Amino acid sequence: MSLIVQKYGGTSVGNPGRIKNVAARVKRFREEGNQVVVVVSAMSGVTDGLIKLAREVHAAPDDREMDMLLATGEQTTIALTAMALHGMGVKAVSLTGAQAGIVTDGVHTKAKIANITPKRIHELLKEGNVVIVAGFQGADEAGHITTLGRGGSDLTAIALAAAIKADLCEIYTDVDGVYTADPRVVKAARKLEEISYDEMLELASLGAKVMQSRSVEFAKKFKVVFSVRSSMNDNPGTIVKEETRKMEDVVIRGVSADKNQAKVTITQVPDKPGVAARIFKAIADAHVNVDMIVQNVSASGHTDMTFTVGKDDLPKARKVIEALAKEVGATGFACTEGIAKLSVVGIGMRSHTGVAADLFEALAAEKINIQMISTSEIKISVIIDLAHADRAVNAVHKKFGLG
Amino acid sequence: MSLIVQKYGGTSVGNPGRIKNVAARVKRFREEGNQVVVVVSAMSGVTDGLIKLAREVHAAPDDREMDMLLATGEQTTIALTAMALHGMGVKAVSLTGAQAGIVTDGVHTKAKIANITPKRIHELLKEGNVVIVAGFQGADEAGHITTLGRGGSDLTAIALAAAIKADLCEIYTDVDGVYTADPRVVKAARKLEEISYDEMLELASLGAKVMQSRSVEFAKKFKVVFSVRSSMNDNPGTIVKEETRKMEDVVIRGVSADKNQAKVTITQVPDKPGVAARIFKAIADAHVNVDMIVQNVSASGHTDMTFTVGKDDLPKARKVIEALAKEVGATGFACTEGIAKLSVVGIGMRSHTGVAADLFEALAAEKINIQMISTSEIKISVIIDLAHADRAVNAVHKKFGLG
Repeated sequence: MSLIVQKYGGTSVGNPGRIKNVAARVKRFREEGNQVVVVVSAMSGVTDGLIKLAREVHAAPDDREMDMLLATGEQTTIALTAMALHGMGVKAVSLTGAQAGIVTDGVHTKAKIANITPKRIHELLKEGNVVIVAGFQGADEAGHITTLGRGGSDLTAIALAAAIKADLCEIYTDVDGVYTADPRVVKAARKLEEISYDEMLELASLGAKVMQSRSVEFAKKFKVVFSVRSSMNDNPGTIVKEETRKMEDVVIRGVSADKNQAKVTITQVPDKPGVAARIFKAIADAHVNVDMIVQNVSASGHTDMTFTVGKDDLPKARKVIEALAKEVGATGFACTEGIAKLSVVGIGMRSHTGVAADLFEALAAEKINIQMISTSEIKISVIIDLAHADRAVNAVHKKFGLG
Repeated sequence: MSLIVQKYGGTSVGNPGRIKNVAARVKRFREEGNQVVVVVSAMSGVTDGLIKLAREVHAAPDDREMDMLLATGEQTTIALTAMALHGMGVKAVSLTGAQAGIVTDGVHTKAKIANITPKRIHELLKEGNVVIVAGFQGADEAGHITTLGRGGSDLTAIALAAAIKADLCEIYTDVDGVYTADPRVVKAARKLEEISYDEMLELASLGAKVMQSRSVEFAKKFKVVFSVRSSMNDNPGTIVKEETRKMEDVVIRGVSADKNQAKVTITQVPDKPGVAARIFKAIADAHVNVDMIVQNVSASGHTDMTFTVGKDDLPKARKVIEALAKEVGATGFACTEGIAKLSVVGIGMRSHTGVAADLFEALAAEKINIQMISTSEIKISVIIDLAHADRAVNAVHKKFGLG
């Protein structure tokens, strides 16, 4: 008998029929003698509908009230999921985030989980219930309802798995698992059996879109082994866990392309202490997330500084730099769209040489120019022309023998 | 400065525009220097939509999960109402029933309020907030979400008014107040300035439909003075309170007709102890609510027994009596639809004579036959042919000078 946490996303519980499918799956696990805790999201479309309603009464609704409103989405799903299980003869009880003992800080719409008191969950499991917990939500110390922000339901599942010491945590989604590359782009892409937290983190932040980084970070911190799998079939999915020695034998775990990038170059920035700080402080104050930053050694006391941001953030970034470029003594600046970031990720990189060379060779063979390069311990990223992105991913995927 | 509780029903908060109207009204009261606690129902249609969803996953959903589901309706409205107030520059905070300190028993879908701890409401009021409380819901001692059943939001408002010792409790609805008769039937019907709890109770149970009896009973028990008024205009409404000496001068407060009645007569029932008990126990076991019961003195040890039930319950009642009539020694039974119950209500009746005579005269003058008569301390009810109901109400209304 295992204690299992399963998380089902909004698409998996998108209508009554799908909720029944989820219930049938849960029932199977239960009948195999397992104890099951189910975390569910709001039915797909519900959260957007609530946001629309809110906007109709206030253009910029208060965060606390937004949480009060949005929390009803998951509360609806847990009740329906419990009912569906009852309909199949399975004992089940639903719990809101607060009832499940999920205590967060008081930062509405993006709360952090402070602690979990799973007493009630344990009691209900002991009585033979499947426990259905509302994802994405909790309550702060004062009892205000909070939500965890993007990817919050994954976080709920992983945090609960840690708190109740689950044997297994399954993240059900609409993809089969984590692939060596986006299967829509690379036909030879292969589903990974397993991947380390760090690799998953690099991929999560790279547009693999399977999960938000914070959930993976949380899992890494509390050593929660979890699998990513599809709620539409019985394929085994990908297991995400601490790295093993065996994992290091694989140099590159996967290759991804983030097509949602834009580039800002500030030319001839005086190369002296405090200039970079000033620029990026201003960018941060405008709530723009900077991804890559590249600065080369300076010639004659000046240097070009380039950074990338999400395409949507480019107007905000442009505004900041427009105001600041002259001020810091730069000669000018340029904003470029139409770029993509290609990355190869793998913990094996640490103990293998020549990865960068192989990557550059693969691109050169395709006559694809590299605009920027940035490396971390387990990742190499290059900025290339957006038009070449898919071709580049295929070439690199093949070069590293990922198929 | 007064402390006011205002309750707005589902129609009053039926869409974002109406929620803004409610907010505008609340703002006015607030700007006059009052402290305001607002109780809201689910937006009209929302509860029905949720029930429909539930039925799609389970034909007979569990009561606890139904409460979990339905409670989201009011939670949505409180958040939107708070946002609308913010939009008008009014400080406001929403609270679920549980957060507002409303503790109920554990009887899901028809919980009773056990106690209210209004500490949080007082704190929020003190900080200058309008406090928006979700009607219809609470939580039991163990923290399970409960709902109060039909008319639950009125009950929330009145119970809160009692708990926080409000100076005024206003029940906003889609009618202007309590009338001497249904204005759609009697053109001369007049809105009452005030009415006693007992009179309101008799009217509430008579199809006046303004409020459920339990809310009025609660108000009577805790001496909560409240007014019933429209959220669509600024008319003053009707004040419901303890009877005053002045009220007794008015013999009849109002006249109503309940057209939703059916009649069951059991003929020649043996007139001996235990027979009536047996019949009405069986009826109660079938969850049929009996309204009037009439039994006359017996002749030759047998008597006819007649009772009325809601029209919808007639098939169930028929089934019970079919099985039971022979068993108790009756010679037969008859079920009749097409009847109406006309009632006159007034606490003045207690100290005035001749009310029954006046009522019967009014009907006789219209050649309307009386099929059954039943009286209580402050009410006389007669069963008449449904076809004559409207004409009868007009005649009686005129006879007692209610116009």
